[in-house]
Amino acid sequence: MAVAMILSYRYLLICSATLALLLQLCSGLSLDTVREFLTREEDTVVFGLIERAKYPRNTPAYDPGYLAGGHGHNASFAEMFVRESEAVHAKAGRYQSLQEIPFFPFRVPFTLAPPYNFTTELYSAAAFVNVNDAIWSTYFNQLLPLLAKNSDDGNYAATVASDLVCLQALSRRINYGRYVAEVKFIGDQQNYTTLIRNKDTDALMKLLTSEAQEDVVKRRVQKKAMVFGQNVTLDGPVETGNSNSSQTSFKVDPSLVYELYDKWVIPLTKQVEVEYLLHRLD
Amino acid sequence: MAVAMILSYRYLLICSATLALLLQLCSGLSLDTVREFLTREEDTVVFGLIERAKYPRNTPAYDPGYLAGGHGHNASFAEMFVRESEAVHAKAGRYQSLQEIPFFPFRVPFTLAPPYNFTTELYSAAAFVNVNDAIWSTYFNQLLPLLAKNSDDGNYAATVASDLVCLQALSRRINYGRYVAEVKFIGDQQNYTTLIRNKDTDALMKLLTSEAQEDVVKRRVQKKAMVFGQNVTLDGPVETGNSNSSQTSFKVDPSLVYELYDKWVIPLTKQVEVEYLLHRLD
Repeated sequence: MAVAMILSYRYLLICSATLALLLQLCSGLSLDTVREFLTREEDTVVFGLIERAKYPRNTPAYDPGYLAGGHGHNASFAEMFVRESEAVHAKAGRYQSLQEIPFFPFRVPFTLAPPYNFTTELYSAAAFVNVNDAIWSTYFNQLLPLLAKNSDDGNYAATVASDLVCLQALSRRINYGRYVAEVKFIGDQQNYTTLIRNKDTDALMKLLTSEAQEDVVKRRVQKKAMVFGQNVTLDGPVETGNSNSSQTSFKVDPSLVYELYDKWVIPLTKQVEVEYLLHRLD
Repeated sequence: MAVAMILSYRYLLICSATLALLLQLCSGLSLDTVREFLTREEDTVVFGLIERAKYPRNTPAYDPGYLAGGHGHNASFAEMFVRESEAVHAKAGRYQSLQEIPFFPFRVPFTLAPPYNFTTELYSAAAFVNVNDAIWSTYFNQLLPLLAKNSDDGNYAATVASDLVCLQALSRRINYGRYVAEVKFIGDQQNYTTLIRNKDTDALMKLLTSEAQEDVVKRRVQKKAMVFGQNVTLDGPVETGNSNSSQTSFKVDPSLVYELYDKWVIPLTKQVEVEYLLHRLD
């Protein structure tokens, strides 16, 4: 009886794995498509950082005290701008796609157009997982002081609009860890299932980590910062990012982009992956 | 008497030219700083186009009929999105800076932060000049069909958000013709004054045109599209945009970016310059 139960449980596991694999094939989700998405998002992140670096620091835009006088807000100008912009995006249905997660949850009914029937590639009970709070605080407190020159040109609206583009790119990139985890789970369902049932966070982290792959990503984004952040002239040489001792000046320090991925983007993505997996059998 | 009047008129001209030159020096506006600004904006335009090309055409977002059913709008989804986003930007004071001009004029009082005292480098009676209507129709009717793949992924909000970034970049770039015209006017005040008084549009166009400079700009943006729009890999070769027969595939066709500048950006900029000059003595 016990043997029969174990066998039927195994059979069930194999069936559900096959079904999940078939669903993934239909939705087009595979380790290749997931990596392709993440690689393309690197360009978006690097472009965003270069565009933000066009503006100086513009400190008042991030200081809650700046709006406090007579306005009754506790939020910074940047937060107010992101909140109001996200409300417009929510109204336009941006967050219908699970790839996009707002920094401020909205109950705005989606009013601007009819709903679109997106395919769902995530396990629904785990799809909510995100680290937007960590992204928000990392971006403003750690990254921005290193990215922007310390002065003030008054272009606060254009500046925080470029912050929003960066935040959305980083959020989409990092919270895409849910898709990465889904693909990895399907590819090795038996091992992941055991670790998830045991809530073995450390072993999950170890199983989904590929240091060689992470190294490729970090060195590639650094190269992208060199190629995309150079001053292209018609007749001058073009920086290829391949030599070690570059004399070119870049719009964003390539080593900062390396560090961003090393310290924040990759660890936060893996945090998303682990949290998603912990809810993958809910 | 007549001679004395002519002499004092000439003296007045010289004095006002000197004064204007001094004002320009104080504000930092010169042919060099203006060209530097325009060159940097090329990167912003190219990044914007590459980011828009990430999404497919998404035709319903531009079709007024898409929203018409029961919503009572005559505008497209894209127009509604731009209107609502610009209202947030207006509220945040974006259009306090004369460098930024909305596509839809707003009477929204600027409420999010205290006003910022921008230096005014333009002649106030001519500062209103802009060609946003032409940019709007060129972007949606001419450029977009050539830029985006003809399919539909439902990401309308993210798509039109990237349209807004492109529109703002093109508007800032093209309407910067006002600053170009101001610098050219100050540099050759006597010739321009005569032509402006005669409303000689053709001669003004001829005086402010430098075909050699335009050629440099067009070839440089094409090169930027090659450098910024390539797929950067860690070990693969880097496209430098210098060879004539490139085998690389680009995210946006570099010849389309050349054409964009050749057919629209440069001619529209010169149209702004001429219109600004026609109001320069108002």
